[in-house]
Amino acid sequence: MKSYRKELWFEVPTRLGFVNITGEVDQCLKESGIREGLCLVNAMHITASVFINDDERGLHQDFERWLEELAPHEPLSLYRHNKTGEDNGDAHLKRSILGREVVVAVTGGKLDFGPWEQIFYGEFDGRRRKRVLVKIIGE
Amino acid sequence: MKSYRKELWFEVPTRLGFVNITGEVDQCLKESGIREGLCLVNAMHITASVFINDDERGLHQDFERWLEELAPHEPLSLYRHNKTGEDNGDAHLKRSILGREVVVAVTGGKLDFGPWEQIFYGEFDGRRRKRVLVKIIGE
Amino acid sequence: MKSYRKELWFEVPTRLGFVNITGEVDQCLKESGIREGLCLVNAMHITASVFINDDERGLHQDFERWLEELAPHEPLSLYRHNKTGEDNGDAHLKRSILGREVVVAVTGGKLDFGPWEQIFYGEFDGRRRKRVLVKIIGE
Repeated sequence: MKSYRKELWFEVPTRLGFVNITGEVDQCLKESGIREGLCLVNAMHITASVFINDDERGLHQDFERWLEELAPHEPLSLYRHNKTGEDNGDAHLKRSILGREVVVAVTGGKLDFGPWEQIFYGEFDGRRRKRVLVKIIGE
Repeated sequence: MKSYRKELWFEVPTRLGFVNITGEVDQCLKESGIREGLCLVNAMHITASVFINDDERGLHQDFERWLEELAPHEPLSLYRHNKTGEDNGDAHLKRSILGREVVVAVTGGKLDFGPWEQIFYGEFDGRRRKRVLVKIIGE
Repeated sequence: MKSYRKELWFEVPTRLGFVNITGEVDQCLKESGIREGLCLVNAMHITASVFINDDERGLHQDFERWLEELAPHEPLSLYRHNKTGEDNGDAHLKRSILGREVVVAVTGGKLDFGPWEQIFYGEFDGRRRKRVLVKIIGE
């Protein structure tokens, strides 16, 4: 069994944002030399997500509006977590909707995707450097 | 290490629907000959889910009502994504709630489940042929 | 390839509750002797979650309030599932928000975590003994 590990770094300039990281994960897979296995991609921070969906700008605006409705940023006093001095209570909840991680099949040395699947980093408390972990195991 | 891959095809005759796919995934595991490992089951489309819950008809009606409240299909103009000519903006959001994938332990050649765990395909934009990927690795 | 399996048992004394199980999963990893691989941790019950977030008491109160808003326990008649004689319709939905499982990278014999990542068991229908499965594969 082979294994491969890499950290990807991001600094999203806004509080919320989505970054297509499919190309970077694909590059990791090439570096790994693994042809059959599983590829885990997870946010290493608890106010960010990794998820798979469509790379369509309108959809990303829909996600942003919808997550803001489900877990609004303000009023900050809505969140007991913010009493610790943080202002990111909402970000912990938003990340729970889109999820921490994806596991992608590796087949014939490629990410085994349907026609529109793309991997995104979802940032809900940006404006600082944060990390995603890529771990691939297989042969 | 062994690996196994299969695509399962579905055509749900309604826009929304849930299909119990536990038997089909179990059949995949038997074909694979793998006794210890991990089994990934994921929707290959971004308007569908794979998730684990109870096979109880009332619960599925609850899921349908609840997802419709959280991300209503109409008005179509609620979703910027629908400006691309699609009418499935809601389906992308609904799928985010129930998730893209499950990872199931394989132990002694069986899906290692608790008493009520069943795997479902969740369709949110049906009436056409769509796919689920089963990938199993192990020994 | 090595594999390891263990069940962790919990009896949360209230209907809802969160238990930090990071130490127990870490102990499993030590027992497994696996140094590179993937660690799956999943609820074996369909009214409970395993998820990764911050170990901060205020945040857990925020989760509890928020999940109760998204899928209230009462009125019990809100859920068709409760017509089966159950009163846990809400618990099935709450668990869908926080998720059934996490997959964690194993690197150098350790859970490969960002600075604040902790694994939690989320109970939504407690006051009885329930299980979490830990399955680790790798080398």
